[in-house]
Amino acid sequence: MPSVTNAKGKLDNQAELSTQRIEAFSDGVFAIAITLLILNIGVPHVHGQARLGLEIWKLWPSYFAYLVSFIMVGIYWSNHHYVYQLYKRVDHQFLLLNVFFLLCISFLPFPTAVLAEYMTDLPNREPAASFYSFGLLLPALSWGLVWMYASKDNRLLDETLDPKFVKLLSRQYMFSTGLFLAAFAISFSTPVIALCINVGLTVLYMLPPKRPVYLT
Amino acid sequence: MPSVTNAKGKLDNQAELSTQRIEAFSDGVFAIAITLLILNIGVPHVHGQARLGLEIWKLWPSYFAYLVSFIMVGIYWSNHHYVYQLYKRVDHQFLLLNVFFLLCISFLPFPTAVLAEYMTDLPNREPAASFYSFGLLLPALSWGLVWMYASKDNRLLDETLDPKFVKLLSRQYMFSTGLFLAAFAISFSTPVIALCINVGLTVLYMLPPKRPVYLT
Amino acid sequence: MPSVTNAKGKLDNQAELSTQRIEAFSDGVFAIAITLLILNIGVPHVHGQARLGLEIWKLWPSYFAYLVSFIMVGIYWSNHHYVYQLYKRVDHQFLLLNVFFLLCISFLPFPTAVLAEYMTDLPNREPAASFYSFGLLLPALSWGLVWMYASKDNRLLDETLDPKFVKLLSRQYMFSTGLFLAAFAISFSTPVIALCINVGLTVLYMLPPKRPVYLT
Amino acid sequence: MPSVTNAKGKLDNQAELSTQRIEAFSDGVFAIAITLLILNIGVPHVHGQARLGLEIWKLWPSYFAYLVSFIMVGIYWSNHHYVYQLYKRVDHQFLLLNVFFLLCISFLPFPTAVLAEYMTDLPNREPAASFYSFGLLLPALSWGLVWMYASKDNRLLDETLDPKFVKLLSRQYMFSTGLFLAAFAISFSTPVIALCINVGLTVLYMLPPKRPVYLT
Repeated sequence: MPSVTNAKGKLDNQAELSTQRIEAFSDGVFAIAITLLILNIGVPHVHGQARLGLEIWKLWPSYFAYLVSFIMVGIYWSNHHYVYQLYKRVDHQFLLLNVFFLLCISFLPFPTAVLAEYMTDLPNREPAASFYSFGLLLPALSWGLVWMYASKDNRLLDETLDPKFVKLLSRQYMFSTGLFLAAFAISFSTPVIALCINVGLTVLYMLPPKRPVYLT
Repeated sequence: MPSVTNAKGKLDNQAELSTQRIEAFSDGVFAIAITLLILNIGVPHVHGQARLGLEIWKLWPSYFAYLVSFIMVGIYWSNHHYVYQLYKRVDHQFLLLNVFFLLCISFLPFPTAVLAEYMTDLPNREPAASFYSFGLLLPALSWGLVWMYASKDNRLLDETLDPKFVKLLSRQYMFSTGLFLAAFAISFSTPVIALCINVGLTVLYMLPPKRPVYLT
Repeated sequence: MPSVTNAKGKLDNQAELSTQRIEAFSDGVFAIAITLLILNIGVPHVHGQARLGLEIWKLWPSYFAYLVSFIMVGIYWSNHHYVYQLYKRVDHQFLLLNVFFLLCISFLPFPTAVLAEYMTDLPNREPAASFYSFGLLLPALSWGLVWMYASKDNRLLDETLDPKFVKLLSRQYMFSTGLFLAAFAISFSTPVIALCINVGLTVLYMLPPKRPVYLT
Repeated sequence: MPSVTNAKGKLDNQAELSTQRIEAFSDGVFAIAITLLILNIGVPHVHGQARLGLEIWKLWPSYFAYLVSFIMVGIYWSNHHYVYQLYKRVDHQFLLLNVFFLLCISFLPFPTAVLAEYMTDLPNREPAASFYSFGLLLPALSWGLVWMYASKDNRLLDETLDPKFVKLLSRQYMFSTGLFLAAFAISFSTPVIALCINVGLTVLYMLPPKRPVYLT
């Protein structure tokens, strides 16, 4: 019976969750958060007025916000798996940090809905763009936290990873978090440029991740 | 510990996600998108008027849209697994294309809700049917994109697959995408026929997929 | 790499989905349908009137409907796994029937919401109870369909199963479907008794399933 | 084919679900319940009034309730895995108790929404805090029930577990359930203190679980 073997196998493991378990749970949260995004787009009400076609077009801010957030979460999912292959083990603190990261991912549908609703409402465009930029900054920050915790003194990483590669990844995460921070700061003065930076970051995130380098 | 072996096993794998991982994540999105469809059907409000029975019947456009979309997503799920057994490996571009395909699947609940709401509202029936046809065209198109990318020069396919079988599948996907396109085009003039084509496609999609042919 | 071995392993398998895959997807739908039920219960609006406590109590029909539907779906999930251990293989028709069964499970949150809303609204209690009984009848019927298809001439069952045990199970499923049908029929005259039968069926379903009997 | 081997393997297993299956299903429910929490936070409506920024701040009770409930469910998920490694087998009663526990977890989004809505509405703060405390008490109570059933006379536990360790865990669960009960009782007189206890329990739950002790 598998559960028995598991219990035994975990004896040396300090009762920690395997990375597989965390990945499966995180995948669930990613899949749900990404699919819930569509619930933000409400059916327009124009019964008897023959304006449905127009109203569907006028929802373009919703489509825009849906697209950016969907791709962002999709890429975080892919990066999540990428980075988990570099971990050798997990501990309780790491687990909590991962839950915090998932909290930030799960929160994203709300700022997305706010952006969709107010992107074209001039007096409220700036707070909407700021809040959305903040919503994108949160996962970047918590992602950075998880990575810093895991990579500090090679705490949870595979020891055979090349330290130079680890440093490269650290710098890369710091750089993209810096860009999200910049977008957030800029959003208070010029919300449109902030949104452009966020879209640009989506494109940047689409680049294939670096192949891990191991010491031989 | 599984994670270590994974990390090692992936060394030759260019840090790519295994097809199993993508399938599991895609399954999550399929399962959620398919189950969210019911949220589109709202409880009718007729307190104290003894008309609930009638109102439940009058929701038939919602049931119709629910049924068609549910079966469509269900069959895409089944086809997704079918086609993934033909892939030998995945790469980053493929991963992004798959995320785009999932975006199209996750979007479907919205056109479904629009169709349910406006199918019986004559002045808006045409845009509702067009939008729904578009909502069904999107997954077909992105499915075709994923397949074209994967099968081009046998890029990601199992090399032992018979090229004739691969061509047959390509033609089949092109054909059904063409029908979705036709339904979309027709929806602008005769929405009812467009819906009939879409329903017909659901039935067509229910046919068992061809058994893969391998070179011996 | 796992995907390659899978592809080979499926050669003799007529490219059918393994039962594991179907179980995983079905589990996803079960888990989502069961968790979505809570979305039916809306926060009461009584700002500034100090009546929140009372209003929370007055939602008891929602709690009742939530409880019955949650337990029903939970037991279907458990029965689903129970019965899948008896299947030796699956085919395309079986797959489609399983999607139809999942459609019926996913539909349940809607009749649940209708019952919760109208159970205490006398002029509409009867249609609400009828619709809910119908909502519970649907999964029972489709479950029976799946089982009939799979067990007919031992089509998909493990051949080592004792035919007497298979017959026993068939009779059991027919019996409980009959009770759901009776509850539906009775709901048109005495909705309260129909609800009692449904609650009774929940309790009946809680009994442990028979241990499978195999020929030695 | 895996399903056949499963069927055989389960012969000695009394057709019980493996703990792995229950964990996978429970993970699904955890992941969905935790991600649905965001749906409680509605987009504020202030079109054309330039007050969006302020309104987003004024949603702080929603963020507070979101945060506490998210962390609670996240930690229950982690504890669920922790405790399942201690189980050697499961039976039907255990399965039903686990479904009841999941019912309590799935219910939490509703009291969370009530708290978020009424935490700052003075006349209704007390019932809101009481209901939320009750919503947190429910999973604690049902968790205790599951554990009591499983650990009674070592019914389902790994026999090699040190009885002292089992007793320690029992006392720990009883203690935290007692604190949830205290928070619930206190909420009727001083809701703010009840909320503080609940937040404190979240922090307490964040402590790493004890490493299981096995007899050698």
